[in-house]
Amino acid sequence: MNLWSGRFSEEMNPDAFNLNASIEIDKRLATHDVKGSIAWAKSLKDAGVLTTEEVDVITEALVKIQREFSGDTFTFSESDEDIHTAVERRLNELIGPLGGKIHTGRSRNDQVVTDFRLWFLENLPVFVGSIEEFQKTLIQRAQSDKGILLPGYTHFQPAQPILLSHWWLSHFWPLQRDHDRIRELLKRVSILPLGSGALAGTAYPIDRNQLAKNLGFTKPSPNSLDAVADRDFVLEFSFISALIGTHVSKLCEAIILFSNPSFGFFGLSDAYSTGSSLMPQKKNPDLFEIMRSKSGTLIGELVSLLCVMKGLPSIYDKDLQEDKVHTFTSYDILTTILPILSQAILKLSVNQEKMAEAIQPSLMATDIADYLVQKGIPFREAHHITGQLILYAEKNKIRMDLIKIEKLKQFHPLINNDFYQCLDANLSVARRKVIGGTAPDAVNAQIDQALSIVSLSTFLST
Amino acid sequence: MNLWSGRFSEEMNPDAFNLNASIEIDKRLATHDVKGSIAWAKSLKDAGVLTTEEVDVITEALVKIQREFSGDTFTFSESDEDIHTAVERRLNELIGPLGGKIHTGRSRNDQVVTDFRLWFLENLPVFVGSIEEFQKTLIQRAQSDKGILLPGYTHFQPAQPILLSHWWLSHFWPLQRDHDRIRELLKRVSILPLGSGALAGTAYPIDRNQLAKNLGFTKPSPNSLDAVADRDFVLEFSFISALIGTHVSKLCEAIILFSNPSFGFFGLSDAYSTGSSLMPQKKNPDLFEIMRSKSGTLIGELVSLLCVMKGLPSIYDKDLQEDKVHTFTSYDILTTILPILSQAILKLSVNQEKMAEAIQPSLMATDIADYLVQKGIPFREAHHITGQLILYAEKNKIRMDLIKIEKLKQFHPLINNDFYQCLDANLSVARRKVIGGTAPDAVNAQIDQALSIVSLSTFLST
Amino acid sequence: MNLWSGRFSEEMNPDAFNLNASIEIDKRLATHDVKGSIAWAKSLKDAGVLTTEEVDVITEALVKIQREFSGDTFTFSESDEDIHTAVERRLNELIGPLGGKIHTGRSRNDQVVTDFRLWFLENLPVFVGSIEEFQKTLIQRAQSDKGILLPGYTHFQPAQPILLSHWWLSHFWPLQRDHDRIRELLKRVSILPLGSGALAGTAYPIDRNQLAKNLGFTKPSPNSLDAVADRDFVLEFSFISALIGTHVSKLCEAIILFSNPSFGFFGLSDAYSTGSSLMPQKKNPDLFEIMRSKSGTLIGELVSLLCVMKGLPSIYDKDLQEDKVHTFTSYDILTTILPILSQAILKLSVNQEKMAEAIQPSLMATDIADYLVQKGIPFREAHHITGQLILYAEKNKIRMDLIKIEKLKQFHPLINNDFYQCLDANLSVARRKVIGGTAPDAVNAQIDQALSIVSLSTFLST
Amino acid sequence: MNLWSGRFSEEMNPDAFNLNASIEIDKRLATHDVKGSIAWAKSLKDAGVLTTEEVDVITEALVKIQREFSGDTFTFSESDEDIHTAVERRLNELIGPLGGKIHTGRSRNDQVVTDFRLWFLENLPVFVGSIEEFQKTLIQRAQSDKGILLPGYTHFQPAQPILLSHWWLSHFWPLQRDHDRIRELLKRVSILPLGSGALAGTAYPIDRNQLAKNLGFTKPSPNSLDAVADRDFVLEFSFISALIGTHVSKLCEAIILFSNPSFGFFGLSDAYSTGSSLMPQKKNPDLFEIMRSKSGTLIGELVSLLCVMKGLPSIYDKDLQEDKVHTFTSYDILTTILPILSQAILKLSVNQEKMAEAIQPSLMATDIADYLVQKGIPFREAHHITGQLILYAEKNKIRMDLIKIEKLKQFHPLINNDFYQCLDANLSVARRKVIGGTAPDAVNAQIDQALSIVSLSTFLST
Repeated sequence: MNLWSGRFSEEMNPDAFNLNASIEIDKRLATHDVKGSIAWAKSLKDAGVLTTEEVDVITEALVKIQREFSGDTFTFSESDEDIHTAVERRLNELIGPLGGKIHTGRSRNDQVVTDFRLWFLENLPVFVGSIEEFQKTLIQRAQSDKGILLPGYTHFQPAQPILLSHWWLSHFWPLQRDHDRIRELLKRVSILPLGSGALAGTAYPIDRNQLAKNLGFTKPSPNSLDAVADRDFVLEFSFISALIGTHVSKLCEAIILFSNPSFGFFGLSDAYSTGSSLMPQKKNPDLFEIMRSKSGTLIGELVSLLCVMKGLPSIYDKDLQEDKVHTFTSYDILTTILPILSQAILKLSVNQEKMAEAIQPSLMATDIADYLVQKGIPFREAHHITGQLILYAEKNKIRMDLIKIEKLKQFHPLINNDFYQCLDANLSVARRKVIGGTAPDAVNAQIDQALSIVSLSTFLST
Repeated sequence: MNLWSGRFSEEMNPDAFNLNASIEIDKRLATHDVKGSIAWAKSLKDAGVLTTEEVDVITEALVKIQREFSGDTFTFSESDEDIHTAVERRLNELIGPLGGKIHTGRSRNDQVVTDFRLWFLENLPVFVGSIEEFQKTLIQRAQSDKGILLPGYTHFQPAQPILLSHWWLSHFWPLQRDHDRIRELLKRVSILPLGSGALAGTAYPIDRNQLAKNLGFTKPSPNSLDAVADRDFVLEFSFISALIGTHVSKLCEAIILFSNPSFGFFGLSDAYSTGSSLMPQKKNPDLFEIMRSKSGTLIGELVSLLCVMKGLPSIYDKDLQEDKVHTFTSYDILTTILPILSQAILKLSVNQEKMAEAIQPSLMATDIADYLVQKGIPFREAHHITGQLILYAEKNKIRMDLIKIEKLKQFHPLINNDFYQCLDANLSVARRKVIGGTAPDAVNAQIDQALSIVSLSTFLST
Repeated sequence: MNLWSGRFSEEMNPDAFNLNASIEIDKRLATHDVKGSIAWAKSLKDAGVLTTEEVDVITEALVKIQREFSGDTFTFSESDEDIHTAVERRLNELIGPLGGKIHTGRSRNDQVVTDFRLWFLENLPVFVGSIEEFQKTLIQRAQSDKGILLPGYTHFQPAQPILLSHWWLSHFWPLQRDHDRIRELLKRVSILPLGSGALAGTAYPIDRNQLAKNLGFTKPSPNSLDAVADRDFVLEFSFISALIGTHVSKLCEAIILFSNPSFGFFGLSDAYSTGSSLMPQKKNPDLFEIMRSKSGTLIGELVSLLCVMKGLPSIYDKDLQEDKVHTFTSYDILTTILPILSQAILKLSVNQEKMAEAIQPSLMATDIADYLVQKGIPFREAHHITGQLILYAEKNKIRMDLIKIEKLKQFHPLINNDFYQCLDANLSVARRKVIGGTAPDAVNAQIDQALSIVSLSTFLST
Repeated sequence: MNLWSGRFSEEMNPDAFNLNASIEIDKRLATHDVKGSIAWAKSLKDAGVLTTEEVDVITEALVKIQREFSGDTFTFSESDEDIHTAVERRLNELIGPLGGKIHTGRSRNDQVVTDFRLWFLENLPVFVGSIEEFQKTLIQRAQSDKGILLPGYTHFQPAQPILLSHWWLSHFWPLQRDHDRIRELLKRVSILPLGSGALAGTAYPIDRNQLAKNLGFTKPSPNSLDAVADRDFVLEFSFISALIGTHVSKLCEAIILFSNPSFGFFGLSDAYSTGSSLMPQKKNPDLFEIMRSKSGTLIGELVSLLCVMKGLPSIYDKDLQEDKVHTFTSYDILTTILPILSQAILKLSVNQEKMAEAIQPSLMATDIADYLVQKGIPFREAHHITGQLILYAEKNKIRMDLIKIEKLKQFHPLINNDFYQCLDANLSVARRKVIGGTAPDAVNAQIDQALSIVSLSTFLST
């Protein structure tokens, strides 16, 4: 059975049928399709198109089908072109020709995008849940790693000492922005297309405001042509996923690098790493690498969707069907990997000594320059003097804290014995106590702020 | 001069210097850089780092530099590596070593992203202005083209008649969603990074809340590492630009197609089309093609940025410098093309007869099925009967309105003389009067809604 | 069982194990993995590492495993992390500890890329087969549609009349270039990585030239680090696939447009089109739309791979595992769709009258200009005169062949009665008889050339 | 002046004109455009369309224009829409109406792509030159760094010791494959489109074989429609550029990482690094970072082009004009950066001690397993025993070379005093002497092979 054979005088070629069929992908929308049909039946009754008795019979059968999907007892037929066909076919099996009334006044065009939006409404909270769990992991690490210093790198060269807690939190905020983006996306998802028909609007007096409310949408779409063609919410989801990918891959990249023994900052847990088939000594950060590579895939999914949409001429084109496979891929990648990564990060061990060792005195160069500024020297000159001091130490292979005061004075006469305090990494960190700075107090305030954001999150109940 | 030569014992290779220099791109941030420095000087004074006198001298000089930029009299030097260097170099020329104090406690890392965010704060309203002008054009066309019918296509096959006004508005709403996205982006742009230093936060007691207020930001960034590394707002802008590209390219694609004489729906204005060097008869829709192709470029810009960011390990990396060229390209494409397209669209002529001609009776097939549904036939059966009717008309090459009633009754005995009303396109359109439908009343309400949205727009004064 | 547990004191977390496992994807390399192992065993014997007896036992067991894969009787175990593990696990089941000798001197790093290259060597001919079938379809149409004229469009505006055969062939040549690219790719695929070990080369005296020959490769890789890290051939395949996508999508786009009744050039076969659930009259070109949308996906697959590879620091990284899923997707898209499209194109009906109708006299404007050039008028002036003639005809709504000679002479006195011959589309076409032109003779020669290329194709036996 | 105003009754809007104009980009094709016109004039003469005298006058004027371009004395006019218009306009200034004959029988459609192909023919050797210089740099380093060992990483974890020369060469071969790809691309570039007219072929009896020869092309294009629409060579160039980007970025990434003092493998030259405006101690690998980021941009350029081409319906569309800006960007990035990077790499200092230090005894684990295999233990068991040995050493914090023989024998009784030889990194390296292995002999052979390839390169004279 298909839904449209009347004007055709020849059967569809079987290979073409299979290529055209989307059931393998859109069966994931099964329960949303039934939910939409139940609401549609009710709207048809309210519009005087179906009788109460008809709607009762239809609804009962649809509830039965819903249970078949939930219980995984629904049997798909070879001829089920898509999930809508499957449901209508089954409906006909259960209640006969009356089933043929359910599609009155609607089209698969408005139906499929309604289903898909319902899927998003149901699954975005799960998606956000994965992100929040990850964010909580980062806060947890920030709390448990308090007081530990590591070198902060810019251009991947040692720059200044920072608190490890501060570093963990620097990965929290990008995800919080993603969180905000998803909340905003949710508003745009929550628009009801049903009632737009194939393109021009349904010809039946459907109360779309009521229908929207019944299905949990905020309001109905304002333009039927746009309603069936709009996949912006899919592109936006895909973009946010790609962005999350870059955020998480950045952290993974750092963990991969810092787990190399030349750094030795992090130790991988046996439970979350793998070995080599050839080299018995290896312990590999595969999970972090997988996330890194998947961030490439997430970008590709977005590009696929943008390419599909670019320059499409018509109102609804079959091309739009490609929206789901890319969405599901992005969704599955992140909801699968993030929870595992959260666990793996909690299990990372920290080698405080290696971190401390990597904080060479030269990382306090900015503090030296600031010291000179305090003595009244313009910053740019102070920077230059410090640079020359560093060069001297490097050329003479002497650590800066071991340079005698007499020598130091040759660089500038105002340098005194208090100079050596500049080289204390803990003092350096403590000095940066502005909002957002790496000083312990500032970081504690930051942890509190992060905690309150996460605990106030109302996304799940939105 | 460069800002960092102290620890270097060899000059930079000139080719390497030129490759490294970003001045050609970031000179576009000149006024924002000066603005940021003026505010920073004030903050240094409030923090007790500079005296009132020092700040007065510095500020006066910076105001002079600002005027040089505005008046295009600023002379760049070969050694100006970037806009920050250029400004500090000029400051030193004007006030000597005191100029060397302006960089106290800040870094180019927090400075450049502050400049860039200031640029966005200034230019996003211009950007939105181009979109709003385009939206107004669409409303204007919807108003002036009232009452005109054209065939609506799905799968680029004739589907149902729709109002041309409805069609114009179907291109309005996607842009309204983009408008909303930019408003949300603006919140994320309006975060002050300055005070984050190179990465760890400034060591001076800067009141970052006050500084944010002075520069027109909502609030200071919560984490210094994230503050210097975050380019999410750039990616988000690039994504929205690509999305606008797909929206506008869709309209352009349709205009290109409908200007082909086989449709003949639209006539291009001489003032907005071009000819052929070889073929004297040609009138080509180049502008619409350019926009379509640029939508490809906009996607590429986004991909560039995503690829640059993916997997970056460090806090600030030079790679981030690539953010501006791609932003400026996307910004320039849209702010240049949209106003011209607006004009070109206003000048399009509409060929009402060609549109009417293309509405064959078969486009009312859904109305026929609905007619049968009204007679009590389940929709699926009604659909099938109508399909066979269409097939009959096609095979016998007879227009449906010319089939005699006796023949029609062979398809279903309930068909009566009122059948022929189904074939009236205007009635078909009028029937679709649900919210978002193509009926004149629904479209008029839609126009009002669009108008009120545009007239209420407060973006420019946000 | 895994291959590497010796140095681990804790079991891998089951979720992490599942995430890490690639078996669902790489089971597609099963027969290639066994083939590689049989050859490796032989090489180990030749190198004196295994005895003849050992190799006989191992080989016999591997042949049995090969049969299990071919006969689909191989049972995967939950613990099979990847295809290599699965095969070695089964080998151990069959022959005990001796199975543990097969991995001597090799690593999964050189093994997996050897398997993957073997997969390419086997499947590229199938891939090329799909393209060749498509090319043959195009030639077949060029042959059967001889003599039919249609308007050629540039900027999608009518330009000059062309032969339909010429148009079909214009889609043949891009595919021929793709064909050439695949042949060149094949050379780069045919390089043996096995013997490179994990990264540094195997420590056993393996004759890699002999091993290459045994496995059907041209030669061994020249650098072991590169050998295990190189995925260029995957990227290249993905690029060629994306390029084929743009080529085929261009044809599909044209068929979609020309099937719109305003053109009516092509009629879709019932066997290769679909209907609408709501609109009984619809016949939709879904297959062509699917191919068009998949060309977007093919671009996304390429981007995924490029993003995965960009900036990878190490020699072998787990990220490389992402190579297969994107390859298989691209491969499956094209080998599935192209044969169906070939059939659908063969079944397209051509409406010669509609094509002829769309060739308005103005399409012969270039011929008019050439006519004036023959009279001695410089082309640029001739172009201008013709343009004014067109403008006159358009403004006065008169077809050019109906303008009287007296009127024509007002445009230029040299215009004579032979002018009207310019307006004959068949003559216009016949004039373009240079190599590559649209004249019947030139097109016939082109068909012969295309035929001889296709019939000489030796790819399958390469 | 424009080339096509005859049929237009209104001037083009100036903003639209500027948007449409491509002169800022395509002026780079100036000399190629003139070259093409000179050859075209000759062909018109051979075809009997122009007289010898006419062609002489035209040619002389074109040669003069060519000199104006070379000498940078050509004056562009505001009305020069594109380079073709500019040249024809100047020709008319120089020789009057006769200049109007040059465009006889050709179109800007076949002209622009001929120009662009000529540009490629001229510039691909320059492009390849940059790559070859880079390849030579790699060979030079391989030669001068002979005998130095560093740890080879997989998953960025220490795997096995390798020769630094081997590592340098691992970056040579990918570029060699790119080199091959460009050579193959050259064949596809070397096809003459001229004579294809706007789309249907020229109506004049041009000898396109001769014309191809005169312009340095291999042969004329076989299909005029394809000839004007084909931009495959542009896409292919863009893909190869992106691929080169990933290759070079991989090396840059490694240098960036290995310059971090925790590795300390490489020392950056002062002449090729930069400092920090704030942190006086910094020496940053900016050039390597720029190349890494530009590899992202190169991918974006490719995506732009693919998106532009995807789904274009017509034969020539204005969209194709977007081909040049992306090509020039990719070309300029690589020809600018590669030579500088070559120099920077030659100036890198190597810290042999730090490399040696990072080769811990555990990197010889594979050698230990191989040792056990030699004693007759199956590899898989040998691997397991070695893993446990590693675990023991790690848990007891004892270096493997310091474990006593008695203890070792507890792991397996066959372990003898010769065990300790396994731990010698130089011996480990020397054992891998298969083709492509890291043993000194194999690497020397590899250097010879690389040298002979580079010295035999005949690309420049192709």
